[in-house]
Amino acid sequence: MTMNTKDIRICFIGDSYVQGTGDPECLGWVGRLCASARQAGRNITAYNLGVRRETSRDIAQRWLAECERRLPATTDNYVVFSFGANDVAIEDGAPRIAEPETLANLRTMLAAAPPRYRTLLIGPPAAHDDAHNARLQQLSERMGEVAAQMGVPYLALLPLLVDNRQWRDEVRNNDGAHPQAPGYAQLATIIAASGVWWFGKQ
Amino acid sequence: MTMNTKDIRICFIGDSYVQGTGDPECLGWVGRLCASARQAGRNITAYNLGVRRETSRDIAQRWLAECERRLPATTDNYVVFSFGANDVAIEDGAPRIAEPETLANLRTMLAAAPPRYRTLLIGPPAAHDDAHNARLQQLSERMGEVAAQMGVPYLALLPLLVDNRQWRDEVRNNDGAHPQAPGYAQLATIIAASGVWWFGKQ
Repeated sequence: MTMNTKDIRICFIGDSYVQGTGDPECLGWVGRLCASARQAGRNITAYNLGVRRETSRDIAQRWLAECERRLPATTDNYVVFSFGANDVAIEDGAPRIAEPETLANLRTMLAAAPPRYRTLLIGPPAAHDDAHNARLQQLSERMGEVAAQMGVPYLALLPLLVDNRQWRDEVRNNDGAHPQAPGYAQLATIIAASGVWWFGKQ
Repeated sequence: MTMNTKDIRICFIGDSYVQGTGDPECLGWVGRLCASARQAGRNITAYNLGVRRETSRDIAQRWLAECERRLPATTDNYVVFSFGANDVAIEDGAPRIAEPETLANLRTMLAAAPPRYRTLLIGPPAAHDDAHNARLQQLSERMGEVAAQMGVPYLALLPLLVDNRQWRDEVRNNDGAHPQAPGYAQLATIIAASGVWWFGKQ
């Protein structure tokens, strides 16, 4: 196998699901997805910029500064955004970020990213709590509408996971929000096979 | 095995060796080191903040802002610094960063980090080029002197790798600077066994 010579750099920007929280192998879906692509000959450098507890507001504040340090003008640059679960989490009786602000933050990022980098949006995964998942289902649909309006490819994970017994059991038996190794492997497989991921099998 | 309940967060700050450049498994030494610690029951969240091509000047500019977003006041927070190879790289006939500036950048970081986070400094690994390694050997010693003056634990990697045939061959056969999976596994093993790493076998 020959490594493709294109120097590909990808920033994965988001929350704890991007970070891979709970994975005993410290790969998360980002590490598994990129290891598969590397082993298929893609010369990928992956920067994992997932941060636990961050909402769309937090991410909107930092993503560009962090990407600019990692994605030089001389390489082939990509960004993947994935967030939403912390926005709908209830604190003091209300979601941490109200839906209009989440969507405004999303619009700001999806306007700024594509002129600079090839851009992909991945929706939030399901958790254990049904009420949380119901709020997330609505947000996930709205995020898809915004992405469509702005011409950015979107992959909704929630509909694929919310009734998936293996995923739900794994999350419930862990911390109620995050899977362990099998769940992250499942996410990587879903994303790799989705058609929106740039470096699937060819 | 029971997971320790302490919520440990570690930022690994540095260059391409920290990022894990060249590793087909997308773990690097950071991923392997933290996976071992997790599998030994440590509840670790690892943030890999290695950036390719960065010198001590680049790192000094960004490290604290990136750590502050990832290390909240409510968790047990650690930082590991590792850099130096890009400082001694020759561009336009001179090292990218002259030694006095590298050491000044190091002093600034090692003054700012310990009041906030438990701090460790790891020296740069060897490359294929002998002249590069000679410059790096001198820098590595000086970095150790600065760390000792400032009371920060330091692990010099260069003396362990510069005459290590397996490491040197792997680096030469890859890109001249970085190893692949076995070399990164070797680094993780060296660091885990060094005594300066906080989460070794107990």
